[in-house]
Amino acid sequence: MSHNTFGHLFRVTTWGESHGPALGCVVDGCPPRIELTEDEIQTFLDKRKPGQSKYTTQRREADAVRILSGVMSDDHGVQRTTGTPISLMIENTDQRSKDYSEIRESYRPGHADYTYDAKYGIRDYRGGGRSSARETAARVAAGAIARKVVPGLIVRGALVQIGPHKVDRSRWDWDEIGNNPFFCPDATTAARWSEYLDQIRKDGSSVGAVVEVVAEGVPAGLGAPLYGKLDQEIAAALMSINAVKGVEIGNGFEAAALTGEENADEMRIGADGRPQFLSNNAGGILGGISSGEPVVARFAVKPTSSILTPRRSVTRSGEDVDVRTKGRHDPCVGIRAVPVGEAMVACVIADHYLRHRGQVG
Amino acid sequence: MSHNTFGHLFRVTTWGESHGPALGCVVDGCPPRIELTEDEIQTFLDKRKPGQSKYTTQRREADAVRILSGVMSDDHGVQRTTGTPISLMIENTDQRSKDYSEIRESYRPGHADYTYDAKYGIRDYRGGGRSSARETAARVAAGAIARKVVPGLIVRGALVQIGPHKVDRSRWDWDEIGNNPFFCPDATTAARWSEYLDQIRKDGSSVGAVVEVVAEGVPAGLGAPLYGKLDQEIAAALMSINAVKGVEIGNGFEAAALTGEENADEMRIGADGRPQFLSNNAGGILGGISSGEPVVARFAVKPTSSILTPRRSVTRSGEDVDVRTKGRHDPCVGIRAVPVGEAMVACVIADHYLRHRGQVG
Amino acid sequence: MSHNTFGHLFRVTTWGESHGPALGCVVDGCPPRIELTEDEIQTFLDKRKPGQSKYTTQRREADAVRILSGVMSDDHGVQRTTGTPISLMIENTDQRSKDYSEIRESYRPGHADYTYDAKYGIRDYRGGGRSSARETAARVAAGAIARKVVPGLIVRGALVQIGPHKVDRSRWDWDEIGNNPFFCPDATTAARWSEYLDQIRKDGSSVGAVVEVVAEGVPAGLGAPLYGKLDQEIAAALMSINAVKGVEIGNGFEAAALTGEENADEMRIGADGRPQFLSNNAGGILGGISSGEPVVARFAVKPTSSILTPRRSVTRSGEDVDVRTKGRHDPCVGIRAVPVGEAMVACVIADHYLRHRGQVG
Amino acid sequence: MSHNTFGHLFRVTTWGESHGPALGCVVDGCPPRIELTEDEIQTFLDKRKPGQSKYTTQRREADAVRILSGVMSDDHGVQRTTGTPISLMIENTDQRSKDYSEIRESYRPGHADYTYDAKYGIRDYRGGGRSSARETAARVAAGAIARKVVPGLIVRGALVQIGPHKVDRSRWDWDEIGNNPFFCPDATTAARWSEYLDQIRKDGSSVGAVVEVVAEGVPAGLGAPLYGKLDQEIAAALMSINAVKGVEIGNGFEAAALTGEENADEMRIGADGRPQFLSNNAGGILGGISSGEPVVARFAVKPTSSILTPRRSVTRSGEDVDVRTKGRHDPCVGIRAVPVGEAMVACVIADHYLRHRGQVG
Repeated sequence: MSHNTFGHLFRVTTWGESHGPALGCVVDGCPPRIELTEDEIQTFLDKRKPGQSKYTTQRREADAVRILSGVMSDDHGVQRTTGTPISLMIENTDQRSKDYSEIRESYRPGHADYTYDAKYGIRDYRGGGRSSARETAARVAAGAIARKVVPGLIVRGALVQIGPHKVDRSRWDWDEIGNNPFFCPDATTAARWSEYLDQIRKDGSSVGAVVEVVAEGVPAGLGAPLYGKLDQEIAAALMSINAVKGVEIGNGFEAAALTGEENADEMRIGADGRPQFLSNNAGGILGGISSGEPVVARFAVKPTSSILTPRRSVTRSGEDVDVRTKGRHDPCVGIRAVPVGEAMVACVIADHYLRHRGQVG
Repeated sequence: MSHNTFGHLFRVTTWGESHGPALGCVVDGCPPRIELTEDEIQTFLDKRKPGQSKYTTQRREADAVRILSGVMSDDHGVQRTTGTPISLMIENTDQRSKDYSEIRESYRPGHADYTYDAKYGIRDYRGGGRSSARETAARVAAGAIARKVVPGLIVRGALVQIGPHKVDRSRWDWDEIGNNPFFCPDATTAARWSEYLDQIRKDGSSVGAVVEVVAEGVPAGLGAPLYGKLDQEIAAALMSINAVKGVEIGNGFEAAALTGEENADEMRIGADGRPQFLSNNAGGILGGISSGEPVVARFAVKPTSSILTPRRSVTRSGEDVDVRTKGRHDPCVGIRAVPVGEAMVACVIADHYLRHRGQVG
Repeated sequence: MSHNTFGHLFRVTTWGESHGPALGCVVDGCPPRIELTEDEIQTFLDKRKPGQSKYTTQRREADAVRILSGVMSDDHGVQRTTGTPISLMIENTDQRSKDYSEIRESYRPGHADYTYDAKYGIRDYRGGGRSSARETAARVAAGAIARKVVPGLIVRGALVQIGPHKVDRSRWDWDEIGNNPFFCPDATTAARWSEYLDQIRKDGSSVGAVVEVVAEGVPAGLGAPLYGKLDQEIAAALMSINAVKGVEIGNGFEAAALTGEENADEMRIGADGRPQFLSNNAGGILGGISSGEPVVARFAVKPTSSILTPRRSVTRSGEDVDVRTKGRHDPCVGIRAVPVGEAMVACVIADHYLRHRGQVG
Repeated sequence: MSHNTFGHLFRVTTWGESHGPALGCVVDGCPPRIELTEDEIQTFLDKRKPGQSKYTTQRREADAVRILSGVMSDDHGVQRTTGTPISLMIENTDQRSKDYSEIRESYRPGHADYTYDAKYGIRDYRGGGRSSARETAARVAAGAIARKVVPGLIVRGALVQIGPHKVDRSRWDWDEIGNNPFFCPDATTAARWSEYLDQIRKDGSSVGAVVEVVAEGVPAGLGAPLYGKLDQEIAAALMSINAVKGVEIGNGFEAAALTGEENADEMRIGADGRPQFLSNNAGGILGGISSGEPVVARFAVKPTSSILTPRRSVTRSGEDVDVRTKGRHDPCVGIRAVPVGEAMVACVIADHYLRHRGQVG
């Protein structure tokens, strides 16, 4: 059972609400003797942190992580994991006090307000409670650890679509990612998005997005044929991010329109005498098992449900109401989903790396 | 850990290879006192059975299921589940003997041959071994039981795209599903697909497809906010089906191109005094929890990798080779994926139904 | 996988070392709308707290618990669980700085020092690290929540043996438990233990103990026939407590010496028209499933391994050494194991209560 | 969740009732390329098989195992595991038809009849259904595979007590185990038991027993400090065997009466320059982690509940009744529990071997 846990050998349990004192996670199963400091984790948290541009929520959170357990200095003074659970905590510091009475009574369309009440009969209405995007900070922190578990693993993400505007793949440059507030791998596209999103933001509207995550350095052999497929668990991990409505691996939905001839990734023996693939439609995974090619996953993020335009809804007590959401929100929540997607993919790969080592040796 | 098991309270463990004596599954956690006969399960297996039209593999399998445990007659002679594990077995009867020496040495492009060897160092090359579509018979059998766990649940699937040809949704009629060999909900589209697929089949080629599964009668409140999201587990379940490369819920990837205004599912109090949704972009799931609306999922199936046209590949011993796959194959493996997709969705919903009942009562 | 997690629907993940900044746990799966305050949890922590008598370690810890997530005030201002994970944290305040260089290099006999190094190649030698009895504070906190999950459940524990001295069962009085520092249900025995343990303590020695836990109000039907037996999971839960070397249910090892006639718990229809048992050799569990009788479990706790008398051992670098352990220790760690045992039994029963409700309804 | 599954990386799911067509298990997670034949498994099944002496039930079952999946011949014709699930089936052949109407209506004291009805509201009354000792055949089969997973592992069991009569440990000789029908390691004790049990059998009575299992060749480092303790999982595995009421590790309950000085297992550097233990009170496990010493576990088996002497009970419909159980039964079910205990310990060790390899490498 895994309502708030993901992973098996590399396991992450997250906790915390948007407006509680803190949030965090427990990372269980991290191998011992891996170098790990708060600073390393902080680096990744800083990428996800809100309030870094006008395109993300203006909530101001330091998102400062503390390691509460699971590491110690070795004989040489280097801080390392001990093999025991690593508890990470991030305090909430900017839970702006405001009047939640409206949200408390009304179900915001597109939000989980209605379904939470249907399920639990009680709901933390303050800032989305458990469904707040703040929870993803814990994922990013866990992902920072996961990256260190698999030697040579590099996981990078990019935003490849905002609203109807897709990135120009012919100009893909990973080095551009850090040069714009969108994790966009193409400066020209970034400029276009900037203009488009300015208007969305001014309108109090929001828009969806597509994120692509690429993992390089994944050894061949990770995963399992059926219910432990590497792609299946990546799909689950990405779909577990708030607002995600679709996931695909490799060429994904495009594969439906192709013939077997077009879709086949052919192979040849390379100059180094080793098998190599001549294309990567499969996104690095065949039969649920990694092929050694880069693992490529994409996920669709729906537009932020919090918008200024009133939408029709109902109250808990059964009355019609119109709801408009004021306050600090991301006009495109897909932007901050990039480091979150990276983290989730890193966690799944780390888990499968350990599982493979366990079963096959 | 779940390499061959899926589900938590309603758990299914499958076993068996294409060319072994049998395949089957153990369904653990089915509630007691549910009426269950082999005939009921057989009905669903017959929908998935190969060789029913020229568009599916000509392998002839009776796919006759036996219940080996977990049911007994009650005081009134009605066969019911007892709450103990239900073991189901389907014998393989048409493992045509043939020469596998070529497949044994060469990696078929698009198949899991290479990755199996990379992982296990040993591989059942006969008919795909564990990755054979035959394994899905066990899923369909389990799904037949799952359908009975949730009162009022109806799960139906349809093929909505073959190659580049999408179904005409304006003419959607569930009753058409059984009138054509494609599970197509529109007779006109079915006729077009028939023509298109004839050519594919004659060419020894193959093509991809998209399947849509709709579950009605899902009570509001199933699922969990983050790592037990109903949509996440549906995504994982569908992605665990062979050849699936993408999954989406509700409007899925389309949501990326929409604004918050367009995507919101507004609500009003209905004539019966209860909240109702005015649209279902969310596909029946908000914040990972079912809303009471129909749950809608789609998945993309890549073209069958077994094709007559030679493709470049390599051998186990490191030589270049050209591979063409003769023998009995589905030109569009997406067709038979329809009842499999239904079964997986039914299993996930049954599992979450029991989990919700456990946690919330 | 459950290296630091126990339970399935009611799941507890603990973290923290003896000498880190804090320890705690995440309780996942607690049903919503249950009243819960820090004070209620604190009550149970106070029973386990060190330094309350001369018979337990003189380490001074407030063991003050904080609820970091998973509760909120309902419409009437009553604090309730929300169904989301409950994160509990207890800060370490009395990690007395001392010289650990000896422990760091030498393996203390009876401790896990050697096996930790054998497993992880790194070890938090400060105060036992993860194996410290301090970890059990997190269990007691989780148990306080578990008690509230099952209506009518009462879980009580008693020390029934210290060293060779067993409690006099003919004078068992639950009300005596709080009147002595041993959780002893008989004042006379308590007086004898007091004398005995004074000597042990003065000698810098230690001694083992046996704890009995009785759960009343357990509804019939919890558990499962084979691998989810209620007694099996109680056994695992109790054996997971540090220093526990044996567990028994009902008459336990005594049953080995009995005949079927002697051991049978006969039944009769009671005055209320309902079946009742005439004895409870089974300890409330038949075939792994609760019978409605009190669940009775006992566990043996070995003597504290930290003693003043030197014992032969070896160092990490492979030299013979004699080890004696100074510092603050429990002469009989079994005493403080009483509330821990109660907590574990409560957690298992809560978990099975939810699991039963899930599977059977 | 694990109602019918045990283990994590080495997972066993069992199914089947006493009077169904067959029983069996699915072993998931067995590493690939391990040599495995039906004959090897059969060897262990034959040790557990009923009807081999007058001291076990006279039911005649061939207990012939079939491997239905998960193995294939390698390039050299040697049958090996493939890493996919291994399905094992044993057909029931001697389900003697008889009149179950009495058992159907009455609850046999000491059996799970009452609790099954309380839980499920339906019960397979024929021969104990799921709780039949026949289920343990599946465990023994799985254990035969587990033994091959850990290089150098030897797991042996012995009966050490029947009724009040304990084995004479000073004459322990493993080679004697096969020379008597009791798995007794001492010929003299075996002779005494023979006489004692003859009388029990003639009286239609039954008696309890204690079994000891010793695992040699367990590498140091298996297990985990708290909720994945090796001893905890051995305790759970043994307690999951029918009729087991207590489990202990090493000196177990005796440890309660000892001082720290007496209980400590001292260490010295051995002639080979490696650390060695001078005693093994701990039973090979410290802090939940194996020390490299033999792992020693004991479990108490209650007397068979089926006896000829009438016992007071009640019927499903609420009437008092006296029950005596005719038919084929083991006068001491503890005898056949010996190979079952071995199998369970082997499975736990195999599982932890893989888990350790996964987490630590």
